[in-house]
Amino acid sequence: MFLAMNRFKIYKGFEEGFETVWRERESFLSGVPGFKQFALLRGQTNDEFTLYASHSVWESRDAFDAWTQSDSFRKAHGQRSAPKGTYVGHPQLETFEQVL
Amino acid sequence: MFLAMNRFKIYKGFEEGFETVWRERESFLSGVPGFKQFALLRGQTNDEFTLYASHSVWESRDAFDAWTQSDSFRKAHGQRSAPKGTYVGHPQLETFEQVL
Repeated sequence: MFLAMNRFKIYKGFEEGFETVWRERESFLSGVPGFKQFALLRGQTNDEFTLYASHSVWESRDAFDAWTQSDSFRKAHGQRSAPKGTYVGHPQLETFEQVL
Repeated sequence: MFLAMNRFKIYKGFEEGFETVWRERESFLSGVPGFKQFALLRGQTNDEFTLYASHSVWESRDAFDAWTQSDSFRKAHGQRSAPKGTYVGHPQLETFEQVL
């Protein structure tokens, strides 16, 4: 199991708009080789922002890497995103391999 | 879906010992109400440490909170842990609720 989590810090008050963008976008993930599962997760809120994470599970790192080079990836990332003032900094990608 | 991730920064060279502790411990999670899935994940390595995360999926935050007050939790956390010099700082718990 390989997990890719992209972490987004969203300014307080912009959460609903951010969630709407995700709700309305097309993931183009169905049928991608090695793709297993997707979720959008909401984490903790502090004084400044709410942490969100896209949580996608893959059969392997190779499957994930292949997707990032694919048309499906380009189509998914060519859609409308939330306005720039929504984000505290840039999204931060973290990847994990299952040990146990 | 509710996700609890405890993040551990492990000094370079101490990864194998840390993984062995997890491999040999008893989780006491089987049969805990609302528990769905556990994994130990290994993330990126930088000059100083390797990031690990325990990744546990629950039916709800309430189920997770109840577990943290239970005998199963006390038993699981009363076991041998890795030596103190293994860790960069304290573990950091992050919790997430599924939005989509």
